[in-house]
Amino acid sequence: MRYLQGEPHALPGNRQPLGGYSATHFRFDALDGVATITLNRPERKNPLTFDSYGELRDLFRALAYADDIKAIVLTGAGENFCSGGDVHDIIGPLTKLDMPGLLAFTRMTGDAVKALRACPQPVIAAVDGVCAGAGAILAMASDMRIGTARSKTAFLFTRVGLAGCDMGACSILPRLIGQGRASELLFTGRSMSGEEGERWGFFNSLCAPEELMQRAQTLARALADGPTFAHGMTKKMLQQEWNMSIEQALEAEAQAQAICMATNDFHRAYHAFVAKQKPEFEGD
Amino acid sequence: MRYLQGEPHALPGNRQPLGGYSATHFRFDALDGVATITLNRPERKNPLTFDSYGELRDLFRALAYADDIKAIVLTGAGENFCSGGDVHDIIGPLTKLDMPGLLAFTRMTGDAVKALRACPQPVIAAVDGVCAGAGAILAMASDMRIGTARSKTAFLFTRVGLAGCDMGACSILPRLIGQGRASELLFTGRSMSGEEGERWGFFNSLCAPEELMQRAQTLARALADGPTFAHGMTKKMLQQEWNMSIEQALEAEAQAQAICMATNDFHRAYHAFVAKQKPEFEGD
Amino acid sequence: MRYLQGEPHALPGNRQPLGGYSATHFRFDALDGVATITLNRPERKNPLTFDSYGELRDLFRALAYADDIKAIVLTGAGENFCSGGDVHDIIGPLTKLDMPGLLAFTRMTGDAVKALRACPQPVIAAVDGVCAGAGAILAMASDMRIGTARSKTAFLFTRVGLAGCDMGACSILPRLIGQGRASELLFTGRSMSGEEGERWGFFNSLCAPEELMQRAQTLARALADGPTFAHGMTKKMLQQEWNMSIEQALEAEAQAQAICMATNDFHRAYHAFVAKQKPEFEGD
Repeated sequence: MRYLQGEPHALPGNRQPLGGYSATHFRFDALDGVATITLNRPERKNPLTFDSYGELRDLFRALAYADDIKAIVLTGAGENFCSGGDVHDIIGPLTKLDMPGLLAFTRMTGDAVKALRACPQPVIAAVDGVCAGAGAILAMASDMRIGTARSKTAFLFTRVGLAGCDMGACSILPRLIGQGRASELLFTGRSMSGEEGERWGFFNSLCAPEELMQRAQTLARALADGPTFAHGMTKKMLQQEWNMSIEQALEAEAQAQAICMATNDFHRAYHAFVAKQKPEFEGD
Repeated sequence: MRYLQGEPHALPGNRQPLGGYSATHFRFDALDGVATITLNRPERKNPLTFDSYGELRDLFRALAYADDIKAIVLTGAGENFCSGGDVHDIIGPLTKLDMPGLLAFTRMTGDAVKALRACPQPVIAAVDGVCAGAGAILAMASDMRIGTARSKTAFLFTRVGLAGCDMGACSILPRLIGQGRASELLFTGRSMSGEEGERWGFFNSLCAPEELMQRAQTLARALADGPTFAHGMTKKMLQQEWNMSIEQALEAEAQAQAICMATNDFHRAYHAFVAKQKPEFEGD
Repeated sequence: MRYLQGEPHALPGNRQPLGGYSATHFRFDALDGVATITLNRPERKNPLTFDSYGELRDLFRALAYADDIKAIVLTGAGENFCSGGDVHDIIGPLTKLDMPGLLAFTRMTGDAVKALRACPQPVIAAVDGVCAGAGAILAMASDMRIGTARSKTAFLFTRVGLAGCDMGACSILPRLIGQGRASELLFTGRSMSGEEGERWGFFNSLCAPEELMQRAQTLARALADGPTFAHGMTKKMLQQEWNMSIEQALEAEAQAQAICMATNDFHRAYHAFVAKQKPEFEGD
């Protein structure tokens, strides 16, 4: 930032790098500012457990302070994205809980989504194979999604006697694919094919399974090399303006963009343009 | 529900079965929990009248308490869905009303939509042929829509000198097909073809006219055999979260889904899964 | 209006015709109620400057009182729509401003969008060639958009180190093309092709470049010949209901449509129908 004295980002305690983080319940790899989270129990199509929900929530919360991570790829090991909450590890125990216990669980899963959307890094879901239940939610809650033709995305809560209103699905899914299509997927629990997902706007694009990780990494790399402070603002405002009036949104954007115009990245871009060079963004 | 003592649904006065209801201004048939409402003046393409608006509003209000009805199909007789408000029966009389009278009318039609969306049963519109004016609204306000290639859906209020803001169209239509396409349909009153409707997300699918009722009934049957308490919650939350922030929606869904996790249907699904059986849902 | 005494629209100072307006920083032509605004520096692909932003804002504000103008076409000269904020005329000077100065700028550009959306005339963007940055915003903020296959629409704020939240983009673009596609365009700044734009709902239709102006003029002509008071209400309510609940929207529409039912245009349409004639609308 150009308009404040002192060290950039010098708020004590506000910088907690995560590049070396070693995850317990999934895989976490970081390379040059791009982090990859890989759900990693391929023999069961990467189900979620209480522990992995909790660690995801905590990790996304920590990412809000990790200025060494600039973009995130979220994927699953072994040709599947995620099969959702494990029936034995999660559904079974849930049937034994009292009401405060149930609410503690649904709030925890909701908090994982809140944290994913509150961290400044764009999250790109790379989706192949099975993408079901809470797995479909994690893909839906990401900022962008790359899929494969053979991927099958199912919000199958209804199949276990539950409602479609899980982890934000009734709010977010209609904004991605339209209210009518979202209603059908949530009422019936049927699979959305990769082709439908692209046509409806769930997937930003499809590619061959063997190209999926490369495609997601290339996009994440480009974002990490861009004006990351501004990217964080884009993500924040897409969230913030969700239910504003247009007039409120215009004032909110006037303020947010004025802040971005005070960054060095904006000045770098201008001077690079004048010098007919490619700008080098540094995220400040 | 598992966590409360006493009879299920035992609230006095809260159960008013409608399976035997005999409608006056349209046809009403109920079979094993699936109700079919058929607009039924085929010689005039099933226009709406003051009386049919009023009876629709009252019926959808009553359906909120009719626990013998689990899903609803809304359709028209004789290869057309509905031609909208009848010019002679409705438009003519409206030109004679004073302002309180006009507002009483627009509130009544709006109340029909409110009631359709407030009852817990999913409503599936089966649309062939003409689907115009208030008829297009009834299709739009339904939870899902199955159409035919030859169907013509027109929000033709502008053709009679009125605005597109009729019975929720400026709020609901943009969420189904996008703001730009909705704007065009509402400003111009032009017909949307069946193919456009499917491509844009108005119709969940198209089928041959002769298969339309079977397709709608099959979907309604599947929903009626599913976890109907949870379906009612899905419908409620899709409505409830319409203009919430994502954070508010996540808390609202945490509460709503915790309630659903206290149902017997959720437990039935778990035990059926463990026993490798298909769950039998009962809606409690 | 039929229910009030006195001269129609007779509010003193409320009628300020603009048919003879002579614009300074773009071209303005009016013919029989249809105004055409042409961004007109074709040798530089019609960039915006501080002056043209300001004049656009003031013109759209004045159009709210210009009852001789019924519909608006917004376009660019010389096979391009608009290249956005000029790098030398705008970006350079912005890098010299303090924070209040930056906010004054972002509020001015936001006010241009507010004014475009607050005037009662439908605005049709006719888009060929380059449609970039603030130019893409002007197209997005219009009520309808006609494009060409070769048009390239890019929200390229990120390329100059800024966020995607510029002039309402994080609020409006997701409602046109879906949240996921909007996120990609805003995070990456990549061009949307004409074909994508039509498929995603950004463009209402595509046509050959040589037919573009004719197509836009024909649509504007039809709107100008229609019930323009009602059109103004349609535009207002699409804006007004942006973040209302469905229940609030239904009451708001009941009131708005009751007002439209008190217009002479509504009565004209009824009597024309009875007489089997085409109605002649006059916008009162």
